[in-house]
Amino acid sequence: MPTDRLSSTFAALADPTRRAILARLALGETSVLKLAQPFDMSLPAVSKHLKVLERAGLITRTREAQMRPCRIDARALKEADEWLEEYRRLWEERLDRLEDYLTTLQAAQKQSKREKNHGRKKQHRP
Amino acid sequence: MPTDRLSSTFAALADPTRRAILARLALGETSVLKLAQPFDMSLPAVSKHLKVLERAGLITRTREAQMRPCRIDARALKEADEWLEEYRRLWEERLDRLEDYLTTLQAAQKQSKREKNHGRKKQHRP
Repeated sequence: MPTDRLSSTFAALADPTRRAILARLALGETSVLKLAQPFDMSLPAVSKHLKVLERAGLITRTREAQMRPCRIDARALKEADEWLEEYRRLWEERLDRLEDYLTTLQAAQKQSKREKNHGRKKQHRP
Repeated sequence: MPTDRLSSTFAALADPTRRAILARLALGETSVLKLAQPFDMSLPAVSKHLKVLERAGLITRTREAQMRPCRIDARALKEADEWLEEYRRLWEERLDRLEDYLTTLQAAQKQSKREKNHGRKKQHRP
């Protein structure tokens, strides 16, 4: 079992059903009953997923109301996003290098075309 | 065990040692031996973590060389980042609302100050 917050967040996100629940909650708060409908799952199964999400701080549940509506909490997602941000330069640099390579390739092709045309003109000279 | 790629990625990231290994590999490729040093872990323990990272597509290992250097693979991280991007508006909207609220608060304070000063001037009139 992960003990730190970031590990709990990533562990909670490592399940397609839990990610689908978060996608639904991103549209607005709703009850467990309504959440369960599109998933064709039993209420206890949905409740189990919600508990994992709640423990990871990804959702909050109102204690007072009988319907106990669930609401997404963006803070834990923001922390995960901030962790990934540190690695964003890895693929951005890769894309930059690819772009540089393509620019060099295009320049070389243009140069080669120019030289070819120049050679042709020379041949046509009387 | 998660079966989809995104679930495998998040599951692999749900461990502080594996995240530390990725942080080290983000600086450049290195051997398992060198990776193990700062962690004060046995080689089999590090190898186990590397296997999880490799299965999730977060690192690649050269099969040929005897040192089998490990290298970070940014693609899986990029997919996780893209998933989180969909939720970025949640906290950005929250920050926008907070900013709007602070602007309203400041405007109300200025108005109240103006009215107070105006009232004082009235009192001083002969």
